[in-house]
Amino acid sequence: MAHIDLMNEEPGIRGPMAYSPETAKPLNELAEVLLRNEDNSLSKGERELIGTYVSYLNDCFFCQNVHGAMAGYYMDCDLAEIDAIKKDFVSADLSEKMKSLLAIAAAVQKGGQFVTTGMIGRAKQEGATDKEIHDTVLIAAAFCMYNRYVDGLATWAPTDRQVYVDRAPMRAATGYINSVKPALSRES
Amino acid sequence: MAHIDLMNEEPGIRGPMAYSPETAKPLNELAEVLLRNEDNSLSKGERELIGTYVSYLNDCFFCQNVHGAMAGYYMDCDLAEIDAIKKDFVSADLSEKMKSLLAIAAAVQKGGQFVTTGMIGRAKQEGATDKEIHDTVLIAAAFCMYNRYVDGLATWAPTDRQVYVDRAPMRAATGYINSVKPALSRES
Repeated sequence: MAHIDLMNEEPGIRGPMAYSPETAKPLNELAEVLLRNEDNSLSKGERELIGTYVSYLNDCFFCQNVHGAMAGYYMDCDLAEIDAIKKDFVSADLSEKMKSLLAIAAAVQKGGQFVTTGMIGRAKQEGATDKEIHDTVLIAAAFCMYNRYVDGLATWAPTDRQVYVDRAPMRAATGYINSVKPALSRES
Repeated sequence: MAHIDLMNEEPGIRGPMAYSPETAKPLNELAEVLLRNEDNSLSKGERELIGTYVSYLNDCFFCQNVHGAMAGYYMDCDLAEIDAIKKDFVSADLSEKMKSLLAIAAAVQKGGQFVTTGMIGRAKQEGATDKEIHDTVLIAAAFCMYNRYVDGLATWAPTDRQVYVDRAPMRAATGYINSVKPALSRES
């Protein structure tokens, strides 16, 4: 049971977003532009994977499954392959650029000051642009927020991981904007 | 020097926000609604103080000074008083409700799962509403993002803390929306 009465039965971040539509709006807009904007040299799958990995490091069950399913959908990977990347991205079948960006994301998860000039230099050497490094840092930072919002309020989440996989195509088609219907009864 | 070329000389979060106006928009909208919305039973000073305290725990110099100055402006406290609260809020001249909310914010800073039912129960006992607990969790989570964005890109910050104090009345008057002018030259 969630720590507060969210006035709705939606799972994960959808619960507090329905409870608080005024904050859901910028939260969903941020996810939309970061993860889905077409004007980006990182693929949607790569961006979802960064969010998935940070959510895994933060041990957020809901977010790592929602976004792991999205990454799997875009990258044509099954659950086992996404799980293998989370556990050991260094050995995974990913570009060296992507591995260098995941290393930066892992540092951001610990704290901004854990990002070193060496990590940045390696990413640039592997061909990462400034914009890709910027987006990696902000995606990782944003998931440190989303994960804390989900778990800090003790929201519930479906335990059957296939649920997230089955839902991914619909979310890929419709996006994050307007993904949550406001609960009607909250008093401010 | 920042880890990437931000194409502008703005300090702190203003640098990457000017570099990336498409993400600055929801980031500033979130700050505006969380910290400044008039329809909130937590005062602006209390909300800025939650952000300040989390920024202090994350050791983010820029954010703790910007928002510490905002909290001081609203609460009519000087720098020394804000510093004393950051170092030991339990002994500070704050309501028991506010102390119980700062304890929740400190847990969120560590990770969402560090928030306990005991902390929530204490906040409710001290009179905190569900909405106030929700906002405390989201403010704390959001500053875990803002702090990482600022330090993960190694932005610069004025070292003279009076600069932040002097700027607070202007920011209190104008708010966070449209607070950053986009840099013109970034290629996507």
